[in-house]
Amino acid sequence: MRFVADALNLTPPAAKRLEERNILRSAFIKHPFFPDIVEALKLEKKFGEFEEGTLIVKTNHGLEIVRGYPKIRRALTLYPTLKRHFKGDVVIEEKMNGYNVRIVLFGNNLYAITRRGFICPYTTEKARELINESFFSDNPSLMLCCEAVGMESPYVMKDVYDVKGLDFFVFDVRDRRTNIPLPVEKKIKLSEEYDFKIAPVLKKCSVEKAHIECRNVIEELGEGGREGVVIKDPEMVTSPVKYTASQSNTSDLSYAFRYFNDYGKDFMLSRIVREAFQSFEFGESVEELEKRCERLGRAILKSMVESIENVANGRKVTEKHRLRFRSEGVMYLFMQQIRKMGVEVIFHEPKFEKGYHVLEFERVLVSTTDKIRHHLEGNLW
Amino acid sequence: MRFVADALNLTPPAAKRLEERNILRSAFIKHPFFPDIVEALKLEKKFGEFEEGTLIVKTNHGLEIVRGYPKIRRALTLYPTLKRHFKGDVVIEEKMNGYNVRIVLFGNNLYAITRRGFICPYTTEKARELINESFFSDNPSLMLCCEAVGMESPYVMKDVYDVKGLDFFVFDVRDRRTNIPLPVEKKIKLSEEYDFKIAPVLKKCSVEKAHIECRNVIEELGEGGREGVVIKDPEMVTSPVKYTASQSNTSDLSYAFRYFNDYGKDFMLSRIVREAFQSFEFGESVEELEKRCERLGRAILKSMVESIENVANGRKVTEKHRLRFRSEGVMYLFMQQIRKMGVEVIFHEPKFEKGYHVLEFERVLVSTTDKIRHHLEGNLW
Repeated sequence: MRFVADALNLTPPAAKRLEERNILRSAFIKHPFFPDIVEALKLEKKFGEFEEGTLIVKTNHGLEIVRGYPKIRRALTLYPTLKRHFKGDVVIEEKMNGYNVRIVLFGNNLYAITRRGFICPYTTEKARELINESFFSDNPSLMLCCEAVGMESPYVMKDVYDVKGLDFFVFDVRDRRTNIPLPVEKKIKLSEEYDFKIAPVLKKCSVEKAHIECRNVIEELGEGGREGVVIKDPEMVTSPVKYTASQSNTSDLSYAFRYFNDYGKDFMLSRIVREAFQSFEFGESVEELEKRCERLGRAILKSMVESIENVANGRKVTEKHRLRFRSEGVMYLFMQQIRKMGVEVIFHEPKFEKGYHVLEFERVLVSTTDKIRHHLEGNLW
Repeated sequence: MRFVADALNLTPPAAKRLEERNILRSAFIKHPFFPDIVEALKLEKKFGEFEEGTLIVKTNHGLEIVRGYPKIRRALTLYPTLKRHFKGDVVIEEKMNGYNVRIVLFGNNLYAITRRGFICPYTTEKARELINESFFSDNPSLMLCCEAVGMESPYVMKDVYDVKGLDFFVFDVRDRRTNIPLPVEKKIKLSEEYDFKIAPVLKKCSVEKAHIECRNVIEELGEGGREGVVIKDPEMVTSPVKYTASQSNTSDLSYAFRYFNDYGKDFMLSRIVREAFQSFEFGESVEELEKRCERLGRAILKSMVESIENVANGRKVTEKHRLRFRSEGVMYLFMQQIRKMGVEVIFHEPKFEKGYHVLEFERVLVSTTDKIRHHLEGNLW
């Protein structure tokens, strides 16, 4: 771990503190698919200025840091929150619903890193297929912060985007060592130049009007099953703020309650609280509030009842995924990686179809399954 | 605290452990209204066989223990849980919704103890008014475990019972030192003899039919806004089990979400989970499930929105109570006691009406109020 202290420029006491906190974990599996990496560790928690998910890599050529993607704070009410937080103009971008990926170049190859700091073989293969690498030869110190979106996702599956399989949408371009983001315009220009898709830039307006513009936009997005918005300072000096549509909150709840014993109570409660603040701020009519109540109640209850029915019928509570790989070796590497991440998974026999190795697997929500079974068998709470 | 070790018959190492755990708290305020008590301490947590809420008292006459009321475990599904837990016959009693009180005699006076082990001046005054004390002269080692029910409640207000102000309904009679309960028949007989009201005994049936009987009963109770049932071994050897109606679960949720930042997430989640298991077990039609979803959604959302509206209008989130006292001294003692319990309360100016000292007060849900205000002022989550 000596190379970590060097890479992060830690003083000897800081290096000791880092070791004592025991928050460094291996971030990859050594494999010819990752030819440039000798060793890679990730931060499991924030350490000093370094975000959770920060990756520290020893490559064949030297030491590299890829900073973790910073937590974006949330507005519970648009007004006066946006007005208080920003000055002058703001940009409203769509917040897409997939998984957060940072893409970087080490040596001659692209690497895709998950939010938590794992180098994901599946995502890396996709990135090498879809992302124009010359961007990095021209801008070696930058990373692309993308939402990886679509149904062929090992993490968050959504079919509301016009995406075949999986695709990347750039939302930030940042210096990978300092985490300083480029201004929004610069990000847009670079993305055009290198032909990257970007998370839609929806509006630019003065902060005085931002809460109204957001509200207009959010209702449309919600109706399309989309997640919400990120409001940004065009210069990216003030930190961004996010805000989500009711449909996204309830879809999260539906997901979380399906797996109610595996998901954090904070996850659930926070989404319920968001609904209340939004309902209040939007000054809803009795009918609108009633509709929101129904949507909320259904999201919570129906998915739980489904999970109970599954277990009552002898099945486990699972989440099914289907991924396609170009390389068989990468597929097996991904399977190893999933196990390493500590996720309980049932892999089905891989198939070869139309040039792809197709892997179907089910994530088993062990705690929810066990909890339901325990009670269905007649045990007391 | 020496007398505690003596009263509980602790070995010196156990006494030391008790002291180290720091779970003894004062349980009363010294006052002429409590003439028999020299000192009273309560257990904040279970300690060995002694339940949380156990009261240890040094009276003018000696040492007394009043065991805490044991936690009653819950069935999430009636079948096969009841069948697994009980044998032979069971008694189904109504579980009333108020606050749990143990009534005992020390010296010449009755004392009413809350679930957590406080000697409550208000409840004690009511007990001395309503409970036939001769029961205790005849049975000095017993305690009455009652639900204190009605709108004139400092803790849980419910107006679904035919009660003026506050009344006591005996559900268990127990040995106050050993916590051993009397058989159900014996409890009924004694209650008749001393003219105590009891929590309604609804059914006696074989355990084979218990889940059906409970289901019939629970739907009726729910429609009347009542809480649920406790299923008991007639001999009270096997521990009782509780089960609640959907309306009670949602009414709890409505209450908890009104004060969402003051209530535990476990409280909320557990009630949601109960709804899902009940919906599954009752094999509901699409329409019934839909209704349950609406009821759940409304319970959660409407009360939160109301609380937000309150704070937006410059008010605090509070819970209003109105109590009547015979004695002005007891009223002031109660006010002191509430403060001592660490509850934030606004007391209104007491009034004297029709022979009663009338005290109105509002419990302030500080955390919920502050949380809402924080976000309405435009602060980020």
